[in-house]
Amino acid sequence: MAAYIAGVGRVTRRTPAVRVEVTPDGVRGSARPDTLAVEEPLEIRVAGTSVTVTMRTPGDDFDLALGNLLTEGVLRRADDVAQLMHCLDEDESGSPTYNVVDVTLAPGVVPDLDRTARSGYQSSACGVCGKTSIDAIAATSQYAVGDDPVRLSPVVVAGLPDVMRESQKVFDKTGGLHAAGIFTAEGDPLVVREDVGRHNAVDKVIGWAAREGRLPLAGHVLVVSGRASFELVQKAVMAGLPALVAVSAPSSLAAELAQEAGLTLVGFARAPRLTVYAGAERLGL
Amino acid sequence: MAAYIAGVGRVTRRTPAVRVEVTPDGVRGSARPDTLAVEEPLEIRVAGTSVTVTMRTPGDDFDLALGNLLTEGVLRRADDVAQLMHCLDEDESGSPTYNVVDVTLAPGVVPDLDRTARSGYQSSACGVCGKTSIDAIAATSQYAVGDDPVRLSPVVVAGLPDVMRESQKVFDKTGGLHAAGIFTAEGDPLVVREDVGRHNAVDKVIGWAAREGRLPLAGHVLVVSGRASFELVQKAVMAGLPALVAVSAPSSLAAELAQEAGLTLVGFARAPRLTVYAGAERLGL
Repeated sequence: MAAYIAGVGRVTRRTPAVRVEVTPDGVRGSARPDTLAVEEPLEIRVAGTSVTVTMRTPGDDFDLALGNLLTEGVLRRADDVAQLMHCLDEDESGSPTYNVVDVTLAPGVVPDLDRTARSGYQSSACGVCGKTSIDAIAATSQYAVGDDPVRLSPVVVAGLPDVMRESQKVFDKTGGLHAAGIFTAEGDPLVVREDVGRHNAVDKVIGWAAREGRLPLAGHVLVVSGRASFELVQKAVMAGLPALVAVSAPSSLAAELAQEAGLTLVGFARAPRLTVYAGAERLGL
Repeated sequence: MAAYIAGVGRVTRRTPAVRVEVTPDGVRGSARPDTLAVEEPLEIRVAGTSVTVTMRTPGDDFDLALGNLLTEGVLRRADDVAQLMHCLDEDESGSPTYNVVDVTLAPGVVPDLDRTARSGYQSSACGVCGKTSIDAIAATSQYAVGDDPVRLSPVVVAGLPDVMRESQKVFDKTGGLHAAGIFTAEGDPLVVREDVGRHNAVDKVIGWAAREGRLPLAGHVLVVSGRASFELVQKAVMAGLPALVAVSAPSSLAAELAQEAGLTLVGFARAPRLTVYAGAERLGL
C-alpha cells in the first residue's frame, strides 16, 4: 500500500437526555447531556465502484475498509491496494465529513466485486433454490487454519475478555460499543478496536494487521465482546486466525463453520469459565 | 395477502461442547452437548428477484420477510403481497430446508428494489460523494409518528424489558438470542419474537403486525433487548411506532433520527431506571 489520506471523525457525541428513576415517591427526571457512541455510514468504494455501506463508529476507517474487503473476499492481500483516501465531502453545515473511503488498486488487481463485503452472500450466493449450504455463503479462505499447531492455555483464554475490556475506552463512556482484539497465544494484546457494529470492530483489527503485514494471523486469537456469529467465524478464517473467543454464545452456524474449518471456537469466556465448541484439542482438552 | 405455504425450521440445535472451569487445582473440562440458537441464511425474493439474504433464526420467516420489505421501503402495504411461500429445497442429506421465501406480489404492485432490504443504503444511497446525511440512508415513512398523541408511563416503560424477558423461550436455553416485542401503551405484549439478529427480531414482530392488519402501530411501543441503532429507529418509524425502548445504549444516529422523526427513544431501560433521548414529552417529562 502506497498512500493514506485520512480525516478524523468523531467517536462519541453529546446529546440531550433525561435520566429517569421510578421511586416509591414518584418519578424523578433530571435533564443532562449523555455521551453516545457515534454511528455513521461508511461507504467503501473500490476503483470507483461502491462496494458496501456499513453503519460504523468513525475512526480507523482505512483499517475497517481493508479488513472488510479482505475478510469478505473482495481482495486477497493488503498489497492489492495502492492508496486509501477519504472523500472530502461536507455536511449541511459545511463541516467536513469522512464517510466515504476510496480504495485505489495496485496495477493489475481485479477485485471480486460479486462479494459485496458484509453482505457478500446477499448478491452473490443463494441464487439457486436449494443452494443453502454453508458453502454457498462462505467466502473461501486462502489459509488452512485447521493446520495451525498453536496450543492455548485455558487459563489465558478465559482471561482474554477481561484484558480486552480494560482497553475499551469508549465503552466506559457510552456503554454502547462492541470490541474486538487480536491476542498472542500468551495473552498479550496486539490491537483492540471498538465499534457500534461487532463485525466492524473485527474488520478494524484485521485491517490493522493487514496494514502491518501480519496476515495470516497464524498462532493468534481473535476476541470479541459479544456473540459469535457465522460472519465472525468467517472473518477469522479469512484472516488465518486459528481461534475465536467470544464473551457470549455462538450460533449454530458459527459452531458448524468452525468445526469444518478447524477453528477453535470458545464461547461464554468469563473467567474462570469458558465453553469450547470446536477445536478443543488446541486447549489440551 | 392471499396465501401462505410454510415449512418449519429448527430454532435450536444441539452441538458437542466442552465446558471448562479453571480452578486452583487445575483445569476441569467436561464434554456435554450444548444447545445453540440456530443461525441460517434466509433469502427473500420478490417476484423472482433476490432482494436480500439475512442470517436469521428460522421460524416466522414470512413475518420476517414481510417486516423486512415494509420497514426497508421495498413494499408499502401488507396488501402488496399476494402470496408468501417457502422454496422447498433440500440440503446435502436430502432433508428439506426452508431458507428461501418467495414473495408473489398483488397485481399492479411495483416494488422499490433499489432499497435492498436491510442493506438498502448499500446499493441505493451514498452514491454521491457528499451525500452522507441521514436523508441519504433513511427510508421515507408514510406515517407521521411525531404526531402520535400517545402518553406513556415511566413506570410501565421501565418494566417492559422484564415483561419481554419472560416471553423469551429460546434465550433461556441458549443465551444467544435477541428479542423484540410490540407492547400497548399500558404495557401489555402483543407479540414477542427472538432471533440471532436484532433487526430480524424487529422485522418479525412488525411483519406479524402487518399480517394482522395492525399497521400503522400508532400508540404502541417497540421494545428491543439490546442496543438501539439507527436501523432499529428507522424500522420503528416505518411501522408507525411512536416509541422505541432499548435495554442498552442508543447510538448517536439513533438519537438524531428519533429527534428528527418525533419518535420517543428510551435507552438503558432497566427498572426502576431509564434514560430518554428523544420525545420525553410522551413520558410527561
